Amino acid sequence: MTLEETIAKLVDANHILAQERVVDAFGHISVRHPERPDRFLLSCSRSPELVTPRDIMEFTLDGIPVDAAGRKPYFERFIHGAIFAIRPEVHSVVHNHSYDVIPFAVSKTPLRPVFHGAGNLGKSMPVWDIRTKFGATNMLVNDIDKGRDMATALGSNTVVLMRGHGCTVVGQTIEEAVLSSVYLQVNARLQTTAMQFGDVSYLHDDEIDVMQAARAAAPGNDRAWEYLLARSRR
Amino acid sequence: MTLEETIAKLVDANHILAQERVVDAFGHISVRHPERPDRFLLSCSRSPELVTPRDIMEFTLDGIPVDAAGRKPYFERFIHGAIFAIRPEVHSVVHNHSYDVIPFAVSKTPLRPVFHGAGNLGKSMPVWDIRTKFGATNMLVNDIDKGRDMATALGSNTVVLMRGHGCTVVGQTIEEAVLSSVYLQVNARLQTTAMQFGDVSYLHDDEIDVMQAARAAAPGNDRAWEYLLARSRR
Amino acid sequence: MTLEETIAKLVDANHILAQERVVDAFGHISVRHPERPDRFLLSCSRSPELVTPRDIMEFTLDGIPVDAAGRKPYFERFIHGAIFAIRPEVHSVVHNHSYDVIPFAVSKTPLRPVFHGAGNLGKSMPVWDIRTKFGATNMLVNDIDKGRDMATALGSNTVVLMRGHGCTVVGQTIEEAVLSSVYLQVNARLQTTAMQFGDVSYLHDDEIDVMQAARAAAPGNDRAWEYLLARSRR
Amino acid sequence: MTLEETIAKLVDANHILAQERVVDAFGHISVRHPERPDRFLLSCSRSPELVTPRDIMEFTLDGIPVDAAGRKPYFERFIHGAIFAIRPEVHSVVHNHSYDVIPFAVSKTPLRPVFHGAGNLGKSMPVWDIRTKFGATNMLVNDIDKGRDMATALGSNTVVLMRGHGCTVVGQTIEEAVLSSVYLQVNARLQTTAMQFGDVSYLHDDEIDVMQAARAAAPGNDRAWEYLLARSRR
Repeated sequence: MTLEETIAKLVDANHILAQERVVDAFGHISVRHPERPDRFLLSCSRSPELVTPRDIMEFTLDGIPVDAAGRKPYFERFIHGAIFAIRPEVHSVVHNHSYDVIPFAVSKTPLRPVFHGAGNLGKSMPVWDIRTKFGATNMLVNDIDKGRDMATALGSNTVVLMRGHGCTVVGQTIEEAVLSSVYLQVNARLQTTAMQFGDVSYLHDDEIDVMQAARAAAPGNDRAWEYLLARSRR
Repeated sequence: MTLEETIAKLVDANHILAQERVVDAFGHISVRHPERPDRFLLSCSRSPELVTPRDIMEFTLDGIPVDAAGRKPYFERFIHGAIFAIRPEVHSVVHNHSYDVIPFAVSKTPLRPVFHGAGNLGKSMPVWDIRTKFGATNMLVNDIDKGRDMATALGSNTVVLMRGHGCTVVGQTIEEAVLSSVYLQVNARLQTTAMQFGDVSYLHDDEIDVMQAARAAAPGNDRAWEYLLARSRR
Repeated sequence: MTLEETIAKLVDANHILAQERVVDAFGHISVRHPERPDRFLLSCSRSPELVTPRDIMEFTLDGIPVDAAGRKPYFERFIHGAIFAIRPEVHSVVHNHSYDVIPFAVSKTPLRPVFHGAGNLGKSMPVWDIRTKFGATNMLVNDIDKGRDMATALGSNTVVLMRGHGCTVVGQTIEEAVLSSVYLQVNARLQTTAMQFGDVSYLHDDEIDVMQAARAAAPGNDRAWEYLLARSRR
Repeated sequence: MTLEETIAKLVDANHILAQERVVDAFGHISVRHPERPDRFLLSCSRSPELVTPRDIMEFTLDGIPVDAAGRKPYFERFIHGAIFAIRPEVHSVVHNHSYDVIPFAVSKTPLRPVFHGAGNLGKSMPVWDIRTKFGATNMLVNDIDKGRDMATALGSNTVVLMRGHGCTVVGQTIEEAVLSSVYLQVNARLQTTAMQFGDVSYLHDDEIDVMQAARAAAPGNDRAWEYLLARSRR
């Protein structure tokens, strides 16, 4: 994809995440620069629903704007850069405060895939606590040190929950990061209800292995993107 | 109904299921071919909300497209063919991942009718586990053998839950399959809330018998279809 | 109000109940005839969202259409007539299957006012079981004997829950019946959540007495009707 | 801000609170008069979604209309005046019956911040019971004595819950009062779900201290207002 196409898709992704209520006034999605893997693209400080191509800024992996042109960046841009730096295969990062997901970030109950739609999220979704290393804060990942600590907690996983805050989801493409964020939210809702019944059958590890092995060619991704994009444009 | 009328109604049914959130990006509904009972009609791989008459494909009961004309079929078309093959009175099949229903498919808690609107769903909604016969899979019914195993688990019932996946609902008409899918979802929501109180009064078996005996002439089906169709077209 | 004004308000009430999801494809609202207290007005068999003035039929209190003019009545019109016959001060009746209320109709947990908005619903909302007198049925109040039995269970209360079915709500005016139905639903939702915490403070009986004494002049009824009507017309 | 600008912002705030379902037919928001700190501005008795600049009335802190001009005031305007009288730094007050918040007002379970978005709500959200001083009432704060008792219970906090009724939220600006009301509602929903899991990690007191110290410059407030306003105008 060209830079222009990448920016257009990133704007679409912002609108989809807003329509699906994965993000509200807050939360953001980035993409690695298609020509410079040591840079990434992310909106200026604007709610995802309202993002336009003119809002997309370019950053170094340390979170420094290449040419701010008067635009104010998100405080938490360091989440994105820190992950792009240690996960070369990752090309898109979503940070969100989904109302269905956060309860698992403030509880010792693990979030685990309960249905096939969430199988590619993997067997483990660790919880990162900013307090462990940084003590009392406003909970925000507002410098590169905090970003790196969070990225370390993410490790090789797809999802990291953030205590008292939200979560971060990565993908090899914008589409994968968006779909994983949407179906992480769906899975959280399903698991919350099923847990009320007290005897949940989670996906087995070997089933998750099958789904993760095929994630690049996950059936139906094109269909899902067409649908989510149409909904965001209604 | 003519073939053209049948296709128009199938498209309406897709849009209703999307509007009622029985399906999202995924899920599908089929109808037996009105002139050839050994064939069925089903959209190509497209989200139900976006399906148009041009997307409707014809399949043999083994799930083989009669004339794909470049269109890509759903991976899980075998669900439909396998049921049409062993249930001659069934003329429509809905496969979905309703967020209210899935918790019952990942728990040992039986889903049972709690109100008259769900009485015609029957006394038993078995849970089929793809793992029992096929081991570790991506959970999808992506060949005819898996379809037949699932159809066997459905047996003579109206609903079969699918562990870690979703459910399948059958009807003697498109209207019946759609309404049963919508009110299965409503019943799941009602039962989930009532179970929180700890002392649920389910419908009695003899009440379900009365409702199932009259299901072909269930009061209000025309009214419900008119309403659901109007909602889907707003 | 003239007959014409009464019909116009009844149509508005249908649309409000649909917009607030108190009713879906099913459920209905009636009003006593403004000139003949031994008659009542109710839509023909149509979903509330779609009701127009031409759909409004006139019935005797036994549920017999005065002039059907080819229109098909609701099966459950007997709910309305039976109540109008024994409650002369009641001028409007709502029958609904609110998804928030039904769980209390299939459980032994009493539904009780937890906040001032529901105070005028009263101290007691009895549960009527059609099975006690009529055995195994399709759960519908489809003749006048069943209507009279349900009306007896309602007694002098404002709300009667119907096991495995839904509820019926009465008011001295259309506005009161509609607002009581809406805030019954809100109260059910609030109580369901509060019960999860295990230590609910219900309204005290003497507080309910104060609110019921002032119900005809309940503060804010005009404001609420203006708001609900505007929402239903968006 | 001029008086005209203040009124325009107050009208926007009404529409935002309605769109976010913090208020329904009932609930209201006020602002201290920009030129006379002993006066405040509040709509006449109209649902927030429908409020226009012509509806905004001026009141003394005792709740007496300065020039009603035929408009009917809210019964509960005393909530606002009583707080403005004892909290000089407060410039805006929201009274609401959020469906997510009320369960905490009818239970002994404390409502506490679980995520950073609610950190500025503070460590304590006391519950005021109108019954303690005033006995059996219709639960409404319909005179200045009740207003003062409620304001005393609020004390120096940001939120006071009202048993069997709702809550009141204060801010140094209209934006702060609105955003605190919205994120109070979000926090209530998150805490309700997390409590189902049984092991909730609330924000630590020192984290809340950090966030409250920076509340005037809370990151993202401008972004959130732009987003909420855009949603309310769709």
